[in-house]
Order: sequence, then structure tokens, then C-alpha cells
Amino acid sequence: MKKVTGEKVIYKFSNEMEPVVTVVQGEIVEVHTNDCFFQQIYDESQILESIDYDLLNPATGPIYVEGAEPGDLLKVKVLDIEVDSKSVAAVVAGEGVLGEQVKNPKVRIINIVDGFAIYDKHIKIPIDPMIGVIGVAPAEEDGEWATNSPWKHGGNMDTTDIRTGSTLYFSVNQKGALLALGDCHAAMGDGEMCFTGLEVPAKVLLKLEVIKSKSIKWPIVETKDHTMIIASGDSIDEAIYEASNQAIGHMRDSLDIQWEDAYILGSLVVDLKVSQVVDPKVTVRAAIPKNIVSTKQIIESIVGQ
Amino acid sequence: MKKVTGEKVIYKFSNEMEPVVTVVQGEIVEVHTNDCFFQQIYDESQILESIDYDLLNPATGPIYVEGAEPGDLLKVKVLDIEVDSKSVAAVVAGEGVLGEQVKNPKVRIINIVDGFAIYDKHIKIPIDPMIGVIGVAPAEEDGEWATNSPWKHGGNMDTTDIRTGSTLYFSVNQKGALLALGDCHAAMGDGEMCFTGLEVPAKVLLKLEVIKSKSIKWPIVETKDHTMIIASGDSIDEAIYEASNQAIGHMRDSLDIQWEDAYILGSLVVDLKVSQVVDPKVTVRAAIPKNIVSTKQIIESIVGQ
Repeated sequence: MKKVTGEKVIYKFSNEMEPVVTVVQGEIVEVHTNDCFFQQIYDESQILESIDYDLLNPATGPIYVEGAEPGDLLKVKVLDIEVDSKSVAAVVAGEGVLGEQVKNPKVRIINIVDGFAIYDKHIKIPIDPMIGVIGVAPAEEDGEWATNSPWKHGGNMDTTDIRTGSTLYFSVNQKGALLALGDCHAAMGDGEMCFTGLEVPAKVLLKLEVIKSKSIKWPIVETKDHTMIIASGDSIDEAIYEASNQAIGHMRDSLDIQWEDAYILGSLVVDLKVSQVVDPKVTVRAAIPKNIVSTKQIIESIVGQ
Repeated sequence: MKKVTGEKVIYKFSNEMEPVVTVVQGEIVEVHTNDCFFQQIYDESQILESIDYDLLNPATGPIYVEGAEPGDLLKVKVLDIEVDSKSVAAVVAGEGVLGEQVKNPKVRIINIVDGFAIYDKHIKIPIDPMIGVIGVAPAEEDGEWATNSPWKHGGNMDTTDIRTGSTLYFSVNQKGALLALGDCHAAMGDGEMCFTGLEVPAKVLLKLEVIKSKSIKWPIVETKDHTMIIASGDSIDEAIYEASNQAIGHMRDSLDIQWEDAYILGSLVVDLKVSQVVDPKVTVRAAIPKNIVSTKQIIESIVGQ
């Protein structure tokens, strides 16, 4: 098992990242992630405007996976997410869905005790840890992506289903894949309405594998019951189009049916789900139920390059 | 118990509808609904363009509820949805999220056997019946609404959570509330991607009650674990704003906390969910978990008119 400590961070997913650790296929790696503020918020009297914005959204890594070549898939199983006992959430004027109504910007420091975030003495939130930022080196033609944005390489997808027990699939664009992650949340509602989740440092345990000669346009997350295509865009409509288009293509290919039959079937069984509507690009996911077609069938039906 | 048969239909939710039956508070009513095509599709050789579009989206009713006055809430508990054994789904060129890719428009007649829709001999869809159209007479200032559109009175909300076991809350705008419903689906994915669900006639069992002197801006559906505000708009962003705004207002009032604290809390626990993205107006819902605040607390905290 390898370990990557939290001071080894990147701020851009690029195709020229220097790996900080190398793992072999099937190896387990423990990754220490910082909160999205790099732990600059420690007191409710602080105001968000006072912190160093250049330090926001650090992602730990990148991790070089031996044998991962462009044209392969990187398979990332999330074995565990252990969050710190102190977390942060905040509102800023103008941010999030209802930002224009914020009159009293504020920072909240929220303790996590026995699996609950203690919001106040009457309100306890059951925690459900997730990874906000996770991705690989982008394709050459996709350039560089700041860690605060989601795109085809992954990045700031802020998707609640990226939790313990889930498996991610990314197209490998550079030798070694170059995986990095950060921005864990102890809790977040779908949408991340006010622009923060429950931001928290974490220890993440991952198992990394390579599937040869398969590639996908957008990241996939496999949960207990679904295969979800995670797509991002400048608008929710754009992201929904992309996620739906990939989902219907995968259903046509894996079930070997006419495209129109896959489209009708998709309308009956695929759930379009909001991931986040507050980052520079917004993110949705199209969830294909495994009782209709398994993730394995979907991956196997992808034509290699 | 009262019964309303399927030939008693409306095509517009208006404030001048003539009731077809009267129930007292707490009474159970069995409502026979038509499929959205008024059963005009019975063979896969038909093309959608050949049917009478004036008959689309019939809603059975309206039902007059004694004691329901403007300024009250109508509480509608869905006790059962029994669907027919024959259902219809279709794609039309240009319709739905991926409509421009449809080259072979088609109609599918799908049998329902033992709780599964038999899509083909390899694909069986577990059914999960829901009510697509349900609403009351609109407010005077809201005018008339065709049954194919969702709005503040309800209507074509196409929300999968309107299923057996759920409870709906509508603001009463006219004496007797004047409830009508139709367009049941045996199955539908969130989003209703291709523009139809699994369209099916149904027998719906409802219990109707009145809560005096409370009113809400958008319909609410209560499920086992959530209180969901169902809002519609010309864009998904607009609908998300409306649903979020109501959800945060209800959380502030029912938990008696500052608006900004409700906004942060909402970002951590409220899920923004897609209902449908294909009707004349699109619909989303903001789901507040009952483990944070109960539906009863939310309803009680509403200030009467």
C-alpha cells in the first residue's frame, strides 16, 4: 500500500503534471486530502474574503498508475473516506442559487461527532462522505483545467455518488493516468445549492486498476444499483444532453438494440440527476439501472481504439 | 367511497370548471384515468401523427371537496395506483432531449405482466406507477392552464415521486378545490428524456382532506423520507431557483433559524431533483429530508392568510 500526504497538491489538471507516487495495478493507495480552503478557515469570525484564494481547491497527487496508457480506462474503487472531525461551510453574497438574497455572509465551523455533523443543538446531519474533486490528466486537445472546474477528465464534479463503495472509470489520456483528488465533503445535497458542501480534510483509500483498450467521453461512476455518466457543460441543458446521449449510446451498444428503442427505454428507466449547479461549469449524471444492464456489460460493449 | 369514471375529463385547469362529483373531507375516491393519448394508440403500426391531438392529456374530474376554501390547503394522499396491462411509449422526430437524432419514429405497445413491463424478451422493467397530471383550479390571476403544462396549480408535473404512499399538498384557489388527474405512467425515469413515460390507463385511489388557512406557492409532495417542493419554469435554472427559494424559506420558518443558516443547511441536505425536462415548462423538485425537519413542522410553520 502506498500513501500520499496532503502537502503534495496540484491546482491544475494538465498533461504535464509530475507524479508524486507510482502504484502498480491493483495496488491500494491512501490519499490525504485537504479541505477546499486548504484549512485556512478555523474560526467563525473569519470572513471568506480574507483568505488566500490562490490556495483554494488543492487536489492531492498526481498518482502514476503503471501500465495505464492513452486509450485505456482507469478504474478507481473508493474503499473508504474517513473525514476529519472539524468541517466548514459558508455563504457569500452573490454565490449559489439564491446568492442575491444573502445579506449576512457567514462561515460555519461544524464539528462531526459519531457520524453526525452538529449543525446546532437541535439539528444533526447524518454524514455521507464524498469526493468533490477527482480526475486524471486531460487529453492533449483539452488543454489544462483548474481544479475548481469539472470536465471530461473529471475534476470538480461534486457528485454525491462518488462515495465509499462506488467505482469510477476515467479515460486515460496520458501515460500513468495521473490521478489527483481533493475537496471531500462530509455531506452535500444534490446541487450544492449555496456553493459549499460540508468541506473537510479526509483520508481516502482507493484501489486502482487498468482496463485495456476502452475509452469513454465522460467519467462514469458505478454505484450499487446504477451506472452513471457524469457530464458537465455551460448550462444544465448542455450537460443533460451530453449525459443522455452517452447513456443512450451505451444502452444501444450493450443491449444490442436500435437507437430509437434505447431512447424510449432510457426515458422509462434512466434518471437524470443534478450533481452541482454552482461551479464554473455545471454537472449532471444520467443513471442507468443495473437491473436493465450491468456496468460490466456496458464496459465490455465499448469498442476499443 | 365515491367513483369517477374515465369519460369525465377536462383539458384545461381553469377557475370555471364544473365539478363531476362531490366528496366530504376524509372521503376516499376512486378515479379512473385515461392514458395521455386517450387510448388512441393500440397497435405498433400506428404513427403518432395520425391520432387526434385534441384528445391528448385528458384529466379525470374535477372533484369538489366540501369545506375547501381559497386560502386552505388540499391534502391528497395517494393510496393506490392500479395500472392497466397494456401500456404505450413512443418517440417522435424532434421530441425530447435527443429528438434531433430520431430517424425512425416509433410507437411501442408494452404488456405489463406480474409487475414488470415486458420491453422485449430480454428486457423487463420493474413497474413503479406514478401520476403524471394532477392539479386543482388555478388562482384567478393565473388564468387557465392546459392539462399538458405544469404550474403553481399542479398539472403536468410528471414527477416520479407522485406514487402510492405519497401525499400531495396544493393551495386551494377556488371553492371545493376542483381536483383533476390523469396521465399515469407505469414507469418513467426522472427527466422523461424522450417525452413519454410508460403511458397507461389506471385506477387511482385517493384520500382527500383540507388543512385550513395555510397556503403555499408551489405544490408539495411528501414521501417516506422527504418533503419536496415541486416548481416549474421556462428553464431548469428558473425552476431550480423557485424550488430552492421555497425550500429555504420553509426551513428557516420551521426550524426558526436565520435565512443564511437555512441556506447553508439546504446546501448540505436538500437534493435538487429533475422531474421532467420535456413539457412546455420544465419541472424540478427540492427535497428536504424529514430527518432534519418533518413535513408536519413545515406545514405548521406556514403563516395562514
